[in-house]
Amino acid sequence: MSKEIESRVIEMGKNVVRMTTEAGSGHPSSGLSLGHLVATLMFQEMRHDPTDPWHRGNDRLVLSEGHAVPVVYAAYAELGGAVGKSPQQKCALKVEDLKTLRQLDSVLDGHPNPAEGFPFFDAATGSLGQGLSVGAGLALAARLCKIDKRIFVIIGDGESREGQVWEALDFIVDHKLTHVAPIFNCNGQGQADYVSPQQSADTLAKKLTAFGYDVQVIDGHSVPEITKAMSKVGQGSQPVAIVAKTQKGWGVDSLKDKSNHGKPLPANQVAEAEASLDKVAAELQIPANVAVPKPPAPSSVDNALKTGKITIAPFAEGVAKAGLADAVAKNKLSTRRAYGAALLALGAADERIVALDGDVSNSTFANIFAKAYPDRFFECKIAEQNMISAAAGLSAAGMIPFASSFAKFLARAYDQIEMAAITRANLKLVGSHSGVSLGADGPSQMSLPDMAYFRSYSSADDGRGNPAITVFHPADSVAAYRLTELAANLTGMCYVRTHRSDVALLYPQDATFSMGGSAQLVQGDALTIVASGYMVTVAMKAVRELEKAGIKCNLFDAYCLPLNAEPILAAAKKANSVILTVEDNFVGGFNSALAEAAALNGQVKVHSLTALRVPKSGQTGDIILEALGLGSADIVSRAKTLVG
Amino acid sequence: MSKEIESRVIEMGKNVVRMTTEAGSGHPSSGLSLGHLVATLMFQEMRHDPTDPWHRGNDRLVLSEGHAVPVVYAAYAELGGAVGKSPQQKCALKVEDLKTLRQLDSVLDGHPNPAEGFPFFDAATGSLGQGLSVGAGLALAARLCKIDKRIFVIIGDGESREGQVWEALDFIVDHKLTHVAPIFNCNGQGQADYVSPQQSADTLAKKLTAFGYDVQVIDGHSVPEITKAMSKVGQGSQPVAIVAKTQKGWGVDSLKDKSNHGKPLPANQVAEAEASLDKVAAELQIPANVAVPKPPAPSSVDNALKTGKITIAPFAEGVAKAGLADAVAKNKLSTRRAYGAALLALGAADERIVALDGDVSNSTFANIFAKAYPDRFFECKIAEQNMISAAAGLSAAGMIPFASSFAKFLARAYDQIEMAAITRANLKLVGSHSGVSLGADGPSQMSLPDMAYFRSYSSADDGRGNPAITVFHPADSVAAYRLTELAANLTGMCYVRTHRSDVALLYPQDATFSMGGSAQLVQGDALTIVASGYMVTVAMKAVRELEKAGIKCNLFDAYCLPLNAEPILAAAKKANSVILTVEDNFVGGFNSALAEAAALNGQVKVHSLTALRVPKSGQTGDIILEALGLGSADIVSRAKTLVG
Repeated sequence: MSKEIESRVIEMGKNVVRMTTEAGSGHPSSGLSLGHLVATLMFQEMRHDPTDPWHRGNDRLVLSEGHAVPVVYAAYAELGGAVGKSPQQKCALKVEDLKTLRQLDSVLDGHPNPAEGFPFFDAATGSLGQGLSVGAGLALAARLCKIDKRIFVIIGDGESREGQVWEALDFIVDHKLTHVAPIFNCNGQGQADYVSPQQSADTLAKKLTAFGYDVQVIDGHSVPEITKAMSKVGQGSQPVAIVAKTQKGWGVDSLKDKSNHGKPLPANQVAEAEASLDKVAAELQIPANVAVPKPPAPSSVDNALKTGKITIAPFAEGVAKAGLADAVAKNKLSTRRAYGAALLALGAADERIVALDGDVSNSTFANIFAKAYPDRFFECKIAEQNMISAAAGLSAAGMIPFASSFAKFLARAYDQIEMAAITRANLKLVGSHSGVSLGADGPSQMSLPDMAYFRSYSSADDGRGNPAITVFHPADSVAAYRLTELAANLTGMCYVRTHRSDVALLYPQDATFSMGGSAQLVQGDALTIVASGYMVTVAMKAVRELEKAGIKCNLFDAYCLPLNAEPILAAAKKANSVILTVEDNFVGGFNSALAEAAALNGQVKVHSLTALRVPKSGQTGDIILEALGLGSADIVSRAKTLVG
Repeated sequence: MSKEIESRVIEMGKNVVRMTTEAGSGHPSSGLSLGHLVATLMFQEMRHDPTDPWHRGNDRLVLSEGHAVPVVYAAYAELGGAVGKSPQQKCALKVEDLKTLRQLDSVLDGHPNPAEGFPFFDAATGSLGQGLSVGAGLALAARLCKIDKRIFVIIGDGESREGQVWEALDFIVDHKLTHVAPIFNCNGQGQADYVSPQQSADTLAKKLTAFGYDVQVIDGHSVPEITKAMSKVGQGSQPVAIVAKTQKGWGVDSLKDKSNHGKPLPANQVAEAEASLDKVAAELQIPANVAVPKPPAPSSVDNALKTGKITIAPFAEGVAKAGLADAVAKNKLSTRRAYGAALLALGAADERIVALDGDVSNSTFANIFAKAYPDRFFECKIAEQNMISAAAGLSAAGMIPFASSFAKFLARAYDQIEMAAITRANLKLVGSHSGVSLGADGPSQMSLPDMAYFRSYSSADDGRGNPAITVFHPADSVAAYRLTELAANLTGMCYVRTHRSDVALLYPQDATFSMGGSAQLVQGDALTIVASGYMVTVAMKAVRELEKAGIKCNLFDAYCLPLNAEPILAAAKKANSVILTVEDNFVGGFNSALAEAAALNGQVKVHSLTALRVPKSGQTGDIILEALGLGSADIVSRAKTLVG
């Protein structure tokens, strides 16, 4: 079979050169270093049906070094692989389509991107170091669904400097995911310079051995060596790592120097490159015009995942099952604990629900789910980046993952979150201990820019009419319970922002919540106060205080971003046309949403109370809020200045 | 000396228990596991003057596992170490001050935080995995300044799962920073569960050996073993890593079980804990009432860092020195390239200027500086998290670091950026290829939520009257050159956002720029258009088009966040009272700033054009802008709807 594969490598190399030159950008030299590895995988080792990339039994390839993608496009075109955003819209990729690389209406995006119609991939890559985690998530899902499949992840040598790669390597060992194989492409060249000796093939091999891997160091241009190494994957009890020594620009003399990273050849050098590849083919006695090998068939899958809406138990039943009935009876229950109850109820209702946490499940209350469904809970330890990308992998395989940590620590994975948003992963993020009300632990544990960050994604359409990320910010346990259910049912990414403190119930137990929603909790005519999350409790106290002073305010709980501002603006117009927003984060959250809506016509004025200083520790959350001018007394005094 | 150290360990243990109980929160069991390591460091191994923590010759301790900080506070109080926000305000910490832990007016924050008055530390920690990078930055600065000092970094075993730790370990080897020593505190317990076998002392030792370290595995409660291991640091050509086996809750029986992570003892159990420590002292024949050992003196420093304002060469001279005179003559120069010229000029003007980049210096143009000042340029390879924290370390030592990457890839380090902001690091971030105008590479390389994210920090005061992070968004090369100079001179963090495309000069070469500033580039009376960065060039084209249709618009370049909105609102009031903002990012940037300002009184209406969809590749930046409805034709047509 070697010569047939090698024949494809020559053709793929030519197409890589042609398509990047046609596009005027791209990374031909990286693609050429991967020719043999990719061809061996896609034509021989991977058990997959290129005409049905959605087949759950397909072996998968994650191209973590996404910039090398033209070589995968080239192989896939030779296989006539299906492209399109859904099985209903599919068509076969042809070799002549390769010249559309990077064009606006092409499925061949500059970096791997399943969401733009290339379903052979499971995740957008191109920000480096994330693919192995995605592969681990795919493997977890395969094991849960009892599907025999292997996942190959190609990682650049320079890329392996990213710490996330080492988080993923640990995670794979912890969870015994022997069906995932990292393949390190050691061509020795980075963008600005050579790769560090710390990422040389030899040092990588030593590191991987220490991390617990069966390491196969091979010549990445030898099909027999590649075949032998890949055949070991999934066979033993130890995960396999392949360290492949390759040459950047393999086969094309003019692309071998390190100055060529990320540079296509000028059009007048394409013929010379083709000749260079032909010369190598002649030297190596590689035949031309051999048939394209057909990869082995995917393993059969005898189960189907559930589909459809997930309905959970009523609130009282749900919290009782989580052992929280007493807390409800005492009217003191934090949103983070109610999240745990909702997750438990979701787990009971649907097998697709899985959860991940980073060593803080007893703070986020993901542990309530973990105890009931240990097979569907994945402890990620203190490694948030791997957690998010692994969750994206689980989502690509049809699961509905909830990934939780302190809201602050999710910031560790904002880049991974962005890549998941580009993938349109069906991933639910849950950040606990948000805002400043966390108190004593201090600013290193507080999330302050999170609302601005996630609001920016909530305003972007994901191409399916949904927000790229929807934010749910529950004010009490009823809201937390129902908004978690809503998050599970929404197709796409969500961010559920929970708080540490126990709070009284603000909503009746049968309250309902909706996308873009807000709820009017108090009616008045002097001013409209808008709060969300924990600040609703603080604002409620202020509103009651203002009532005693004869000042009746509207109080809105704005619990979703994107926010439909209309009901709030309409109420405000009947109440002095002034809004005061109250938030426990830096600027850029709900205040901005309302100010932007109001500024379109200027009929309603919008004032804000937000965190305007970098905070420090204080003994309680309320002490910090007061120090920042966000306590209920601050709301009262500010409100009084606004009612005229 | 061992018994004197051990005596301190007993006292420190009691104080750790007392102060966390008094605070009602904190992590006594973690602190107790570190007693011997911290005492040996602070009383014996570190050459430092506790009464002058600002002394540049002091050896330094970075407590990466920040939650264990009470044990450091306890040792420092026994040393009478100086606290306070500056040498002028300093006073000695006393043992009785320890009970103020975590209070609002205390310098003893919940996690290490030099900015709140604890200058013994160089960086805020508490988000895990960042300290070793900070230590590496401190070591780079020491070498540059020819100061003989050692830096010890204490890292939790569970914490060592964070990938950034392994980025830092590679970085230390690459740069031969033998004076930095990671100390892994292997107590085997995490928060939610035991630490993974992947982070056991034995596995850590194997990993560290493979990464190139001289590994010392020791009993972390044996002062002789600790002393012997620490004495090796900085002696050989290989960096030393210490793996210390410890017991969580050492000395206090009621704190040894893993259920105690992060839990102080109830007040009624403090006496029992003290008795438990006394019993251990008796068993080990540790004397009480011995004098507090005096640590060795810091090494002398015979040089002083420059201070004061940095003035760079005029624009024409600066770009000529960078080899860009031709580009200026042709009137085509990107902001990223002008940044490189400014960095070169800054490097010539001041020795404190250093630069870091993550294998993309030939894209960000930090390479212009690197070629001229190789000793002050630090290649971080593809590991952005380590880059940012190392830059924070350099800043703590008095350098002025510029850390550059693609704006998108800086998102990889948003958590590290937050920690640097909490530290009030004097760190300058430079994100290139920002927005969507990058084009063909696709969304994995585009920064879209960055303006919302950084604006949230720009609105927060850092406690010194400065923004926590200031954003500079230059529209042309003159602006990029001068705003980079401004960033260097501002005390505190800045984010300079540059673009890929070459643009014509919009400003005269002697233009000046200021904090909070904007500049009116065109005057009109029909509408006020506000843009920034690359979109000023796009908007300028639209304004010229509108002029041809007889519609005269104001055009403002808003180049700084926080933004002083007044000049723009004042101009808008004289031009139909309508503003149209134009941005190449998701919502939350300049539009929000203006909408919030306008919504305070409703006199000016604010409309926006921003990226409202997750983009994909297109052959050029302008094609993407048009696909998102942000091209100059889109601005023209939107403007026409707003002029009435």
